[in-house]
Amino acid sequence: MLGNFTFANPTKLYFGDDSLQYLNDELPKYGKTVQLIYGGGSIKKNGIYDAVVAILKANGKTIVEDSGVMPNPTTEKLKEGIEIARKHNVDLLLAVGGGSCCDYAKAVSVSVHCNEDPWEKYFIRFEEPSCKILPVGCVLTMVGTGSEMNGGSVITNHEKHLKIGHVFGEEVMPKFAILNPKFTFTLPHKQMVAGIYDIFNHICEQYFSGTDDNTSDYLAEGLMRSVVHSSLIAVENPQDYEARSNIMWCATWALNTLIAKGKTTDWMVHMLGQAVGAYTDATHGMTLAAVSLPYYRHIMPYGLAKFKRFAVNVWGVSAEGKTDEQIANEGLAKLEAWMKKIGLTLKISELGATPEMIEGIADATLILKGGYKVLERPEIVQILRESL
Amino acid sequence: MLGNFTFANPTKLYFGDDSLQYLNDELPKYGKTVQLIYGGGSIKKNGIYDAVVAILKANGKTIVEDSGVMPNPTTEKLKEGIEIARKHNVDLLLAVGGGSCCDYAKAVSVSVHCNEDPWEKYFIRFEEPSCKILPVGCVLTMVGTGSEMNGGSVITNHEKHLKIGHVFGEEVMPKFAILNPKFTFTLPHKQMVAGIYDIFNHICEQYFSGTDDNTSDYLAEGLMRSVVHSSLIAVENPQDYEARSNIMWCATWALNTLIAKGKTTDWMVHMLGQAVGAYTDATHGMTLAAVSLPYYRHIMPYGLAKFKRFAVNVWGVSAEGKTDEQIANEGLAKLEAWMKKIGLTLKISELGATPEMIEGIADATLILKGGYKVLERPEIVQILRESL
Repeated sequence: MLGNFTFANPTKLYFGDDSLQYLNDELPKYGKTVQLIYGGGSIKKNGIYDAVVAILKANGKTIVEDSGVMPNPTTEKLKEGIEIARKHNVDLLLAVGGGSCCDYAKAVSVSVHCNEDPWEKYFIRFEEPSCKILPVGCVLTMVGTGSEMNGGSVITNHEKHLKIGHVFGEEVMPKFAILNPKFTFTLPHKQMVAGIYDIFNHICEQYFSGTDDNTSDYLAEGLMRSVVHSSLIAVENPQDYEARSNIMWCATWALNTLIAKGKTTDWMVHMLGQAVGAYTDATHGMTLAAVSLPYYRHIMPYGLAKFKRFAVNVWGVSAEGKTDEQIANEGLAKLEAWMKKIGLTLKISELGATPEMIEGIADATLILKGGYKVLERPEIVQILRESL
Repeated sequence: MLGNFTFANPTKLYFGDDSLQYLNDELPKYGKTVQLIYGGGSIKKNGIYDAVVAILKANGKTIVEDSGVMPNPTTEKLKEGIEIARKHNVDLLLAVGGGSCCDYAKAVSVSVHCNEDPWEKYFIRFEEPSCKILPVGCVLTMVGTGSEMNGGSVITNHEKHLKIGHVFGEEVMPKFAILNPKFTFTLPHKQMVAGIYDIFNHICEQYFSGTDDNTSDYLAEGLMRSVVHSSLIAVENPQDYEARSNIMWCATWALNTLIAKGKTTDWMVHMLGQAVGAYTDATHGMTLAAVSLPYYRHIMPYGLAKFKRFAVNVWGVSAEGKTDEQIANEGLAKLEAWMKKIGLTLKISELGATPEMIEGIADATLILKGGYKVLERPEIVQILRESL
């Protein structure tokens, strides 16, 4: 049942192919110095960097560069970002990129005015910010994480082989996000489909929990169907604006807390995938894809009714004359066929994982309790071996 | 396609059977004087009034009473509310009731510091507020309008025989809303099902427009299925907490702008129903129910693909071996069966409309252009006759 919860999401979203201009509406709300956060420089090639800088300058802002945010932002990079913000007394953190840039910006935002070690405080002790939080804005160029409209931030500690996410509250959510589907057109195919599976799996992580009738599950089914539908168009024609815009919009609503309301939520695919990522540095969405099917086939008997519903409501499997197991298995077979069709990697060995890494990956896999089965360590090892 | 739009909804929602206590978290954010807005006094019978007043007093607030908000709040009542707020220099408008109380509170909020006639400014000229806006909070006791999380406000001018709604922006949306499904348990059956159909029709009004693939439509289908599912449980057992909570949650998301993104939206059922209401003073949801089937059967040929999709995705109609018309008609037959089952009125004659009123109701029906067919006057008359 829906139970007791709070929903609050103050992020203002500007969506569409003319959305960047709204930066002009947002910038006057903040002080003079803007920390411009981005990744490896692809935004310099596709013109987005120049367009953003022009708007910042037109609004009289002082730009402080903070580039080189990596796909899995590290504690070292976080330290660098905090120093930049402190040195220049930054007023606004503007992330131009994908989920990594947004995640990183949020981690910087809660750390600049905090005297403790942010890794220990937020990612080990999971404390809430007790200091002034810098405002964050996002210009999204990659789709998948939903970081543009939530309080989530995932940081990687290479030294400790740990990649940990903290979901902060509404005060850490971006103040605004600019979502232009055209900014995602130039993304390489692999990154596009990895993002698509990230979205789909965010929905699954919330959907595959609980046994009751819940509006969140109905909304989740709608989002899944929309993602699947548009993904098949987008892989054929990455420049299909309609498909790319639906995918972008689904990504935002897949992980802004709406469809988690009343749900315990699972997140074990993410725990497994992130552990694989910590060992291989592979693309996040691909790690999720590669562990998903062995995981879902493993937990299916414990959540059979939901897997049956998934088959019928998301994949249109006919239930007639079949056992629940048959229906549920057909649903997972349809999921697998779709994953193959859009070009996802279904083996962690193809992402750089070796049999020798399995025990270490299993050690790095956090066990959560919201799904249909609380995994034991041998089950994790088994799922990882089946994913090889 | 989704196109260009902004999404911003800062309302903080506290949901669940313990949600009233969160008034203690919200009240300290505002000044000392609270205008307590409510309707005919049912909240005094069911204990909600006492509970709210106790929390207000515990927080040291001065309470200014503003009761007697009627189902269709009038310009006279609005004037009264503005005077109360001005006289007592009110800091917060707290609406305890259904959509009418929330709508009214929003109208007061934009008028207290405005020197112009609010009816003329907001409901005739549709201007935006240019003055200080008083904050609004809601404690919801009826479900349907979605007013708790949107900027909508409908005011009736009896002198001019007009009932007009203005959808204000995010700054007018309630700062917070408290949604306790148990507060809706004591609602009479007729009001409960009228509210349920109001929710369902809000979704239809947005769903039945456009021809493209849009995430909004997938979300709308999810909401419709959830409403139908929970309504069948609620009519059997109005005290089923799970069903009532899902209905309450669907109502909020049916009309907080989310599922309208990228849609032209129709709203002709509301125009027809409101015109019937102006002549009969019948319950809003019942007027919508009574005109819906003749209207949808009339426009079906112009939006056949969507009506087919509605049949399959919302009602589970099998498409096998049938023409599109057959599938679409089966969907509307399922809608009709559901409406009868939950006890909706399907004839405007049962709501007090007579054949002699038809021309007048047709005159009072505003023609909108977002749906599948822009109606001509003879079509309106025909639909109204078929609704008799």
